[in-house]
Amino acid sequence: MTATINNRIVLASRPEGAPQPDNFAAEAVPVPNPGEGEILCRTIYLSLDPYMRGRMSTAKSYASPVEIGGVMVGGTVSEVVKSNNPRHAVGDIVVGYGGWQEYWLSDGVGLRTVDPSMAPISTAVGVLGMPGMTAYTGLLNIGQPKPGETVVVAAASGAVGAVVGQIAKLKGCRAVGIAGSEDKCRYVVDELGFDACVSHRSADLGKELKAACPNGIDVYFENVGGKVLETVLGQLNPFARMPVCGLIANYNLTGLPEGPDKLPIIMRQVLTLRLTLRGFIVWDYADQEPEFLREVSTWIREGKVKYREDMVEGIANAPEAFIRMLGGGNFGKTLVKVGADPTA
Amino acid sequence: MTATINNRIVLASRPEGAPQPDNFAAEAVPVPNPGEGEILCRTIYLSLDPYMRGRMSTAKSYASPVEIGGVMVGGTVSEVVKSNNPRHAVGDIVVGYGGWQEYWLSDGVGLRTVDPSMAPISTAVGVLGMPGMTAYTGLLNIGQPKPGETVVVAAASGAVGAVVGQIAKLKGCRAVGIAGSEDKCRYVVDELGFDACVSHRSADLGKELKAACPNGIDVYFENVGGKVLETVLGQLNPFARMPVCGLIANYNLTGLPEGPDKLPIIMRQVLTLRLTLRGFIVWDYADQEPEFLREVSTWIREGKVKYREDMVEGIANAPEAFIRMLGGGNFGKTLVKVGADPTA
Repeated sequence: MTATINNRIVLASRPEGAPQPDNFAAEAVPVPNPGEGEILCRTIYLSLDPYMRGRMSTAKSYASPVEIGGVMVGGTVSEVVKSNNPRHAVGDIVVGYGGWQEYWLSDGVGLRTVDPSMAPISTAVGVLGMPGMTAYTGLLNIGQPKPGETVVVAAASGAVGAVVGQIAKLKGCRAVGIAGSEDKCRYVVDELGFDACVSHRSADLGKELKAACPNGIDVYFENVGGKVLETVLGQLNPFARMPVCGLIANYNLTGLPEGPDKLPIIMRQVLTLRLTLRGFIVWDYADQEPEFLREVSTWIREGKVKYREDMVEGIANAPEAFIRMLGGGNFGKTLVKVGADPTA
Repeated sequence: MTATINNRIVLASRPEGAPQPDNFAAEAVPVPNPGEGEILCRTIYLSLDPYMRGRMSTAKSYASPVEIGGVMVGGTVSEVVKSNNPRHAVGDIVVGYGGWQEYWLSDGVGLRTVDPSMAPISTAVGVLGMPGMTAYTGLLNIGQPKPGETVVVAAASGAVGAVVGQIAKLKGCRAVGIAGSEDKCRYVVDELGFDACVSHRSADLGKELKAACPNGIDVYFENVGGKVLETVLGQLNPFARMPVCGLIANYNLTGLPEGPDKLPIIMRQVLTLRLTLRGFIVWDYADQEPEFLREVSTWIREGKVKYREDMVEGIANAPEAFIRMLGGGNFGKTLVKVGADPTA
């Protein structure tokens, strides 16, 4: 049985600086009916990710912004509840971009069927979804970690960072995390198996990072920017690689920070250390998805890759959870449980 | 017949900001005698290059600094005048790192014999030497220019920039130079065959560059930094590549520039445009030297690659010529003619 009301969250206004609750609005609209070739999806899990901050702004990026009044974008794990599409049967679990709402229509494009026997279906937007694949493709293609090298990643207890460090360990590297609290650091070392983790709130991040990376840094998986980047820049080894997939510390900037201008610092390091910096988004490596799913799901089943979810209940709580995540208040992959999980 | 006096230039003191004449000192010392396995070289041409500014400082780099009182380093084309080394006969023309002096001893390591029939021997420290190979290896390995793409290079009339643009043309690209005067721009377009050249002294560099690059910029060969880099950053295309071999605009900085801090700008562009920045020095690609010499010397003989030399006479004039070059006062590859050229 399907409900008749679709609760959803739309973009009410564009934030200046950190998003506020009133940048979002809740709406209740009728559940739509699928047209020819379409399916109706009931969302179970919604993923909240830092990139969504970019979609709230009109600044030029790799994707178009959400329109004012438009449903916030987001990856979702959903159940097919009606189908006019022979490729998707009622009851199938699918992962796609349903956005911040309970029900949505898909024409099947970009939809992938999830095998619930592989792992809990929530992982299809986490460790086995976009964040995990971002870690996997960026680290392996751009980071190119070699045994014995040191790999550093910030937001180390988060959806991407946790996978980066665990794969680095599997590749024979020293994995060093940076996280926002002692709890998180403990989890990163004790549960995820990183060699060390330092807090970015430390009074002397540079000194602590140096102690954690006695042989310097060969790969810095960049997802935060800001002070962490500046600290890491001074500890990179010659020929270090820096995959850049996010800059969460910069997303809420309303203008350029006060001086001094540190552009010459990074350029000098690029030149004298012969660094490689490379920006990417996960879909640049879309052709590696089958390999990623096969390899990482095996690691999960073997207990070699672990993950942690930070789950809130109900679509109405998505804005608050999102705002909290941008401030580092999450602990693990941020998810909204939007509806009942028939596989749980 | 060999002179008995070796005139040379040593580092008298380390510069703060732009080097001054009194950072250098002239010395006259006896010409040394070659020991076992050594050869005595009489220098004909000394190359002056921006990287030498780095060697005058103690800041961490890919190479050790020159000691106070030490002979300034530099690439040289020399004639063998005495030899205790079976691999190098008297009269041979050799290219190596003899430094800023008339005579020097080599044990043969790193010395390459120059074939005067291939091209004028001065090119062995120019278009067929380190600067030319920097252009060739950086553009082809990191820039990876594809037909129809736009390649931008600054210091376009200089030793490296001129070769970058001409190879870009040979690869089917649109080549756009940035140079420091109308004369240089005219030369870059009329003589070297670039599609356009704009002056970095222009009142609106951004606007002029945009007009010269209507389809955006796919490869920016970075050898200057500063304002030019900031302007280019705003006009790069998705997936643009930026080989970084020099930052001449930054070399004389005594501290970080006043704000705002532009580090977030470059990181944002790296992320959203999926840029690749990569620092390199020419010897990272040492194994490509034979291929480089073969290909570029052919292009020179066929008239497809041209070059221009900015020559001063006498080792005593090296400091002044070097200081002038750092300020952009050269026009072409900066050379010092140190002694008679028997092949001319």
